[in-house]
Amino acid sequence: MTGYLTVAGLGPGPKAQITPEVTEALARATDIVGYGPYVARVQAAPDAVRHASDNRVEMERARHALALAATGRRVVVVSSGDPGVFAMAAAVFEALESTPAPDVEIAVLPGITAMLAVAARIGAPLGHDFCAINLSDNLKPWPLIERRLRLAAEADFAMGFYNPRSRARPHQFARALDILRAACGPARPIVFARVVGGPDEAITITDLGTATPGMADMRTLVIVGSSTTRRVGRWLYTPRSAE
Amino acid sequence: MTGYLTVAGLGPGPKAQITPEVTEALARATDIVGYGPYVARVQAAPDAVRHASDNRVEMERARHALALAATGRRVVVVSSGDPGVFAMAAAVFEALESTPAPDVEIAVLPGITAMLAVAARIGAPLGHDFCAINLSDNLKPWPLIERRLRLAAEADFAMGFYNPRSRARPHQFARALDILRAACGPARPIVFARVVGGPDEAITITDLGTATPGMADMRTLVIVGSSTTRRVGRWLYTPRSAE
Repeated sequence: MTGYLTVAGLGPGPKAQITPEVTEALARATDIVGYGPYVARVQAAPDAVRHASDNRVEMERARHALALAATGRRVVVVSSGDPGVFAMAAAVFEALESTPAPDVEIAVLPGITAMLAVAARIGAPLGHDFCAINLSDNLKPWPLIERRLRLAAEADFAMGFYNPRSRARPHQFARALDILRAACGPARPIVFARVVGGPDEAITITDLGTATPGMADMRTLVIVGSSTTRRVGRWLYTPRSAE
Repeated sequence: MTGYLTVAGLGPGPKAQITPEVTEALARATDIVGYGPYVARVQAAPDAVRHASDNRVEMERARHALALAATGRRVVVVSSGDPGVFAMAAAVFEALESTPAPDVEIAVLPGITAMLAVAARIGAPLGHDFCAINLSDNLKPWPLIERRLRLAAEADFAMGFYNPRSRARPHQFARALDILRAACGPARPIVFARVVGGPDEAITITDLGTATPGMADMRTLVIVGSSTTRRVGRWLYTPRSAE
């Protein structure tokens, strides 16, 4: 019996930023799997079973979803933002690698990732070449993160940072800011954004010389401009051309 | 009189990937501005005026849209993918910088950018740190592009490439492939994707040793994996952890 496993991106939060294909997948799901707060808030069929799990148990969640789908269920794994950007899609394929599921049809439905939602809200800071780095060292060694920060600055990318800071590692983001300040100078624009599009939205645009580690927490998305990023009125943007 | 200028992302093509906020902005627009094929296909109010322009006239289009909005119109500039990623948003802020428009309310509505749509279609190749580079040298010197390619490979980013190749510069993409092959080795996965989600969708997953410049044209989105990117069944993904 064929089962279905769809990994769906909910975007940054507002319903108006959820694509119709994701809305439809949720409406047809027999089972919704994901981090508790996301599972609780999505619109789904009245008889859909909601399987809420804790944060930071992505692999167990992925295996559970795959096992459910293998019984012939129509499972949707929900992910904030885009499932392919530091979210559930990679975990599902890791689970599939260790436990093949030949009778499960898999699909990934993209969503608006936090970095691009924040960028749109403040202008076009990623309007030229850019990179995205997860600053958490849960799944990679911290020295690799430092190395990537230095190379990204040398390449003059605008940068988006996910998971910049947590209580378990309060000093690392200070170190990241030091590296960026040394490489990019104190005048380089930096953006701290939380709950973009939500009722508690908080966005600060400042510069590396003024930025402090306390401006970020686990839920903050951070953007650092390239050498050409600049203000126009209340907006921040990176011109399309680089000299 | 207040005018409105909204820069809206149409996503990669399918209607099911256009966010409701973009659909609503189009329905309320008095004027739709953009590249001809996009302007022709969007759903809008029957009396909306459609202003189609050629490709590669982004600045004129942005100035025109801003001038229209300054007369009190409700203008939507349409962009494929996400307007903040190698698309119209930066051009609008460039226009605003040279011609302030104090009575125009500006908004940018994000969309699914091509890189993330392609990634979702084939798995999760951008599931770890990644970068996005526009390979066109229309607006930046080619040596800067070569430098970014080398640094991105050294940082071990997965990479998404926009505008990889055009008739005006057929040899540069061959050069880019040479640089990547030298830096990443022949076994590194590379993806060529056209018209993702559309009726003529064409996706090739191969490796740098096999890739040839002719696999890309102006409308191709190219993804190159990081050192950990691998296949599982028909899928390509980058694990969340890097060792």
